[in-house]
Amino acid sequence: MARSLAAAVSVAELVRRFGGEVSGAADRGIRGLATLHSAGPSDLSFLSAAKYRAEAAVTRAGAVVVAAAQADVLPPGCVRIVVGDPYAHFAAIARWFAEQVSPAVAPAGVHASACVAPGASLGDGVRIAAHCVIDDGARIGDGAVLGAGCVIGPGAVIGAGTVLAPNVTVYHDCSVGARGIVHAGTVIGADGFGFAREQGRWAKIPQLGAVRIGDDVEIGANCTIDRGALDDTVIGDGCKIDNLVQIAHNVRIGEHTALAGCVGVAGSAVIGRRCMIGGSAGILGHLEICDDVVISAMSLVTRSITTPGFYSGVYPLMPNADWERSAAVVRQLPALRRRIRQLDGSATGRGRDSPTED
Amino acid sequence: MARSLAAAVSVAELVRRFGGEVSGAADRGIRGLATLHSAGPSDLSFLSAAKYRAEAAVTRAGAVVVAAAQADVLPPGCVRIVVGDPYAHFAAIARWFAEQVSPAVAPAGVHASACVAPGASLGDGVRIAAHCVIDDGARIGDGAVLGAGCVIGPGAVIGAGTVLAPNVTVYHDCSVGARGIVHAGTVIGADGFGFAREQGRWAKIPQLGAVRIGDDVEIGANCTIDRGALDDTVIGDGCKIDNLVQIAHNVRIGEHTALAGCVGVAGSAVIGRRCMIGGSAGILGHLEICDDVVISAMSLVTRSITTPGFYSGVYPLMPNADWERSAAVVRQLPALRRRIRQLDGSATGRGRDSPTED
Amino acid sequence: MARSLAAAVSVAELVRRFGGEVSGAADRGIRGLATLHSAGPSDLSFLSAAKYRAEAAVTRAGAVVVAAAQADVLPPGCVRIVVGDPYAHFAAIARWFAEQVSPAVAPAGVHASACVAPGASLGDGVRIAAHCVIDDGARIGDGAVLGAGCVIGPGAVIGAGTVLAPNVTVYHDCSVGARGIVHAGTVIGADGFGFAREQGRWAKIPQLGAVRIGDDVEIGANCTIDRGALDDTVIGDGCKIDNLVQIAHNVRIGEHTALAGCVGVAGSAVIGRRCMIGGSAGILGHLEICDDVVISAMSLVTRSITTPGFYSGVYPLMPNADWERSAAVVRQLPALRRRIRQLDGSATGRGRDSPTED
Repeated sequence: MARSLAAAVSVAELVRRFGGEVSGAADRGIRGLATLHSAGPSDLSFLSAAKYRAEAAVTRAGAVVVAAAQADVLPPGCVRIVVGDPYAHFAAIARWFAEQVSPAVAPAGVHASACVAPGASLGDGVRIAAHCVIDDGARIGDGAVLGAGCVIGPGAVIGAGTVLAPNVTVYHDCSVGARGIVHAGTVIGADGFGFAREQGRWAKIPQLGAVRIGDDVEIGANCTIDRGALDDTVIGDGCKIDNLVQIAHNVRIGEHTALAGCVGVAGSAVIGRRCMIGGSAGILGHLEICDDVVISAMSLVTRSITTPGFYSGVYPLMPNADWERSAAVVRQLPALRRRIRQLDGSATGRGRDSPTED
Repeated sequence: MARSLAAAVSVAELVRRFGGEVSGAADRGIRGLATLHSAGPSDLSFLSAAKYRAEAAVTRAGAVVVAAAQADVLPPGCVRIVVGDPYAHFAAIARWFAEQVSPAVAPAGVHASACVAPGASLGDGVRIAAHCVIDDGARIGDGAVLGAGCVIGPGAVIGAGTVLAPNVTVYHDCSVGARGIVHAGTVIGADGFGFAREQGRWAKIPQLGAVRIGDDVEIGANCTIDRGALDDTVIGDGCKIDNLVQIAHNVRIGEHTALAGCVGVAGSAVIGRRCMIGGSAGILGHLEICDDVVISAMSLVTRSITTPGFYSGVYPLMPNADWERSAAVVRQLPALRRRIRQLDGSATGRGRDSPTED
Repeated sequence: MARSLAAAVSVAELVRRFGGEVSGAADRGIRGLATLHSAGPSDLSFLSAAKYRAEAAVTRAGAVVVAAAQADVLPPGCVRIVVGDPYAHFAAIARWFAEQVSPAVAPAGVHASACVAPGASLGDGVRIAAHCVIDDGARIGDGAVLGAGCVIGPGAVIGAGTVLAPNVTVYHDCSVGARGIVHAGTVIGADGFGFAREQGRWAKIPQLGAVRIGDDVEIGANCTIDRGALDDTVIGDGCKIDNLVQIAHNVRIGEHTALAGCVGVAGSAVIGRRCMIGGSAGILGHLEICDDVVISAMSLVTRSITTPGFYSGVYPLMPNADWERSAAVVRQLPALRRRIRQLDGSATGRGRDSPTED
């Protein structure tokens, strides 16, 4: 469960800090944040989407952040904090709350078991946890935090204020910008998958580029972002990458693009700004996706996209017996189309070779 | 290869321990377990599925666990252990065998290189391997085993008898139940992928919940199970999760459900009990799957499933040239359907707007 | 960016080492390798595919490796190294270059923080980085390199000259051949996903086999290769495996096969030699793929393939509104086919039960 405040904060105090109008007992003490369904009398919750109105009507939350138009749905004893945008308002409270309840951060410094090469440089106020390894020429920015077991290769750079969770590996010469978050187990800068076929064997193409990650980027757990073959692999400022995402060599991703879990991006693909790539989607290599494109989960992008918009390509789910019948017809579609064209000719009197829309 | 027993065990002894009727030389010595194909004279194998009868007929296994109806297929010199359910019987022998041949476990205790915070609590008989880090307030249950390089965050709980392989990361406040197994590289409790768009940028939504994993759960290697935003992410008792599985924030999975490798489950999805999710399948967020649902490999669940059963949705594989033709027609399907309706009208005399089955 | 040579090498020297004919200033000094687009006056680049001719025409590269037929496209001042196969030639130069610019390797030896069991054996010239753990009976071949935080289980074998990046886990009794590369976070030898249903619960089937990886194999970051149930999981010589690939228990992969990122191979699948499996593709269990098969990205192999060739099965991507219409028809395909058969009968005078091609 989410952690609670050691000492309650009053609704009045929350309104003083974050704004809104109180309706009800402003001295109600709040110790936790919770969903409408889970909240108890000392929890604050929020109501934004209309589909949660039923839950709101029976919530046991002590207080709820809510828009004026929906305030009436809440039970009588529940304190309302009436605001314009309940979700954004609650998110702001949650960020403050997170600071209060997060586990105490280790004091600045380098744990005795960490191995920092003499030629590495550490910024002011860094926190280097147990069993980290920081190689020669690596630079750790001011206030950066390295969780236990992180390995930072020669010449790699971790930006100011960036937080690496435990067991992150950053290969030589790769860089992560400022104020970033990299979750546990992620690997930045492994060799791109580059081989040339020579007499039935694979000859390795050296991967001489690096990875360059912008500022304010969050990367999930157990991701892999490969170094470039010659140029760098580049992730733009403000990108958000979920867990288990694979980004191949030479990929370039524009600012503020988000990739959901299990996405795979093949080599040299270029993705624009503010795109959203759904979970488990794939993007083939050597193509370009323009800005503001949304790709559905588990869809495969096989050629460049030059028009912003929402794209999909996934077989619909159905009971397996129906799927077997449907899939059998998918195999016969060209034959089926031919027969329709023939029928079309015979039914309408046109020949089968007449111009058609396809 | 599988390890062998230091000293052979006789077929008679195996029957004494696990039951069954011997037919043949009960003093045959067994030192290893193997498939019908690989087994040699000192190996025990088993025959259950009929499709392995051909291999059984020529097996060199010293002894075979077999049902009475299939015992005749084995070669003359091969000792039979005749039982009702050969697969379950062999599995029981294999579990005993595994205990005999597994590498010696380190003695109970904490390796000198491990860092255990003063405020952490360790149960009786725990084994903490080299370079582990156990933070303040974490609790490790009796008899639990942590492989080398595991990192257990503040307030996290590892249940009694649970085994973590090397390099597992458990974030703060997350819990794993009793008698569990977590394979190497898995990350439990990274932040859920929660962001709100604010003026073209992504603002982080703090992830204040945790992960709560039940008893008798096995989790494969390099999985990621994110902490909840407000409520916890919950994995029920007895669930089995294969490698490289992604489970997003707020997901709830019922007891004894199995997820095969590379599955991705998006945020706030609820999966019932005893479900089986095929490899690389995807489950979108904010939907519900009832108990006893089976999803085919690489299928995407896009809406709630309320009826138990077997569901599929995957494009059939075909030679690439055929696929190009088939996929071209898939793009034209709506036009094709229109044309069929028109033909239907002209061929049958009904107008195109007459009621149809679709 | 790619690292540069400390001291420039002349084009003449490169030709002396690697061959080719110089056209232009043979004393041009080269310090880096780059793409045609990124190269500057002290960089060497190459032109192979015709689609890069436009970039070649305006490149600022100091020198370019090029075929005679394309040499004219380059700008006047650019030095040409004219060769038969520019890509292979450049790759050879790049391999030499990589040796010159790679970060200094740690001297041979075992870092003081590594834990090597007394019963482990280390070959000549091994490099064991900080915080590695090498268990009893493990053997590390001559000249092998273990990055920081690697964990090598009891009885595991790392071949001569093989390089493990940081945080790799190899379970007990598994082996990696000679001259291999395993990237960070990869897990070799976790338990296969083997359970038997017993009264609504999952009973674990012990995984007694191991993993056996051939020589000259490269494995990407955060992969998972499970140990076999009885037999070993086997990866043939010369295989190349990209990041986040899942290989289940008992799988056997033939020599020189390549698997792109995010591929999942289910249990007991057998893949032939020289196959190429596209990114995010899936291969179901207990089937066989013959030699020289190519599978498209995100396609699912559901039955054995006995003919070499190129196979695909993926829903084409389209604007979401089009996809919704297309997917709706996919659900109705069996009904549509029935209707066409009826029309066929009425239009041609044949009955619906007449023999048809499907």
